[in-house]
Amino acid sequence: MTGTHPFDDAVRLDQIDTDVRRGRTHPEWENMVGPFGGITAAAVVRAVETHPDRIGEPLTLTINYAAPVADGVFDLSLRVVRTNRTNQHWNVELTQDGQIKATATAVFATVRDSWADTEARPPKAPPPEPITPGALGDIVTWARLYDMRFVDGPIPTGQPSPSSTTTLWVRDRQQRPVDYPALAALCDVFYPRVFLRRGGMLPAGTITLTTYFLADRRQLEAVGPDYVLATAHANRFFGGYFDQSAQLWSRDGALLATSHQVVYFKG
Amino acid sequence: MTGTHPFDDAVRLDQIDTDVRRGRTHPEWENMVGPFGGITAAAVVRAVETHPDRIGEPLTLTINYAAPVADGVFDLSLRVVRTNRTNQHWNVELTQDGQIKATATAVFATVRDSWADTEARPPKAPPPEPITPGALGDIVTWARLYDMRFVDGPIPTGQPSPSSTTTLWVRDRQQRPVDYPALAALCDVFYPRVFLRRGGMLPAGTITLTTYFLADRRQLEAVGPDYVLATAHANRFFGGYFDQSAQLWSRDGALLATSHQVVYFKG
Repeated sequence: MTGTHPFDDAVRLDQIDTDVRRGRTHPEWENMVGPFGGITAAAVVRAVETHPDRIGEPLTLTINYAAPVADGVFDLSLRVVRTNRTNQHWNVELTQDGQIKATATAVFATVRDSWADTEARPPKAPPPEPITPGALGDIVTWARLYDMRFVDGPIPTGQPSPSSTTTLWVRDRQQRPVDYPALAALCDVFYPRVFLRRGGMLPAGTITLTTYFLADRRQLEAVGPDYVLATAHANRFFGGYFDQSAQLWSRDGALLATSHQVVYFKG
Repeated sequence: MTGTHPFDDAVRLDQIDTDVRRGRTHPEWENMVGPFGGITAAAVVRAVETHPDRIGEPLTLTINYAAPVADGVFDLSLRVVRTNRTNQHWNVELTQDGQIKATATAVFATVRDSWADTEARPPKAPPPEPITPGALGDIVTWARLYDMRFVDGPIPTGQPSPSSTTTLWVRDRQQRPVDYPALAALCDVFYPRVFLRRGGMLPAGTITLTTYFLADRRQLEAVGPDYVLATAHANRFFGGYFDQSAQLWSRDGALLATSHQVVYFKG
């Protein structure tokens, strides 16, 4: 963690006291308004990971984007709500100058031996290597930090699509290995589904994001710097909002995370 | 609200002060351990609805079940985190004797004119009327308050299923009309998916539940006391946990809500 990688820079947090961590925004993670929501989610995961009372690994995270994060420092206030034998509930608030910009709840948990099965199936996709990298980085700064290879539903250029599904191979451009904060960020790499259905860009932003981490540390370490297969679709668009569901898969078919969000849009 | 209906009884809250509501558990809503998680979610939605500063209707709810709710009274403490022009962020804590039993975050929002489409499709199902009501009420008390007619994946009786999907028509047994609190409860009517895959009952409980309300008030009112078509499946079982995704549809094909949860299980 010597600060040479933009992801490590973004999730580097200073300890202000036992329950408060201070981070800062970085221009390379800029989105339309404020920073990429995924990098804020990553900082929340990282903050809980640094807390001395933390048990286990991330199991669930819900982050609510209440207001845009302004350029500069932000504080993450952590509170252990409850520690059970195998899981632990956290509340987190992101503030700037005393104003709440985001709230989060997280469950950390220890995995136990149990019956196991992956019932979902990964989307069909050719290998990433021959696919030409996509151009989302022309639109938003942070996307330049990822190598994105679209299998289905690339950023539209005028033509509406009957389907809101996007599937892509994605990895950190500098091939930083995937850990839990990185996985939290990857769950938010999809441009808004309404762009695809409408054939172009509209004002849109995530209001709330929930991620379920379904891989243990050993499985994440096995992914290392490789591509993950990310797929997302919307279920319903109505009243200026839509919901999105996503899955992230390893190349060898491990379901690493499922993730859901509600997005605001105009148009 | 004269207290003659068990759902109205369960979501009747006393105002302790501007930001605190007091509810109580009811034996008819009893689950394996503590009350049915759906009725607790309903009480949270109802509590925010009663707050004088509330704008709009429920859009999203995440509730984290930190510890079992004991029989008796509970307090819901409400906090407006942020009010934007068209949406509002809430934090809610459920306590008993000063101990936090559940935390929740919710977004309430006003719907606006926008492009609209339902991309998801309801599961195929025959009409509910000829289907024999299911017997989940033999297992858990609260299920007796619902009329459940299973289309697919009824409670297993010894035989493991290769699929975790359950689809059922469900309505309040006394035909109380569906409102947002009732919709929040209906999103949690599914018995644990691991029962279906393993062919029998195991210790299991929801840790966190996130619901996206995708119908406006007019659409909910159109459902009235009718059945809704509810479907749920799991994606991955691992380390003593699984994730579940669900959809609730009206009979005429309106997607009323999507809902996701992570469940703890032993076995």
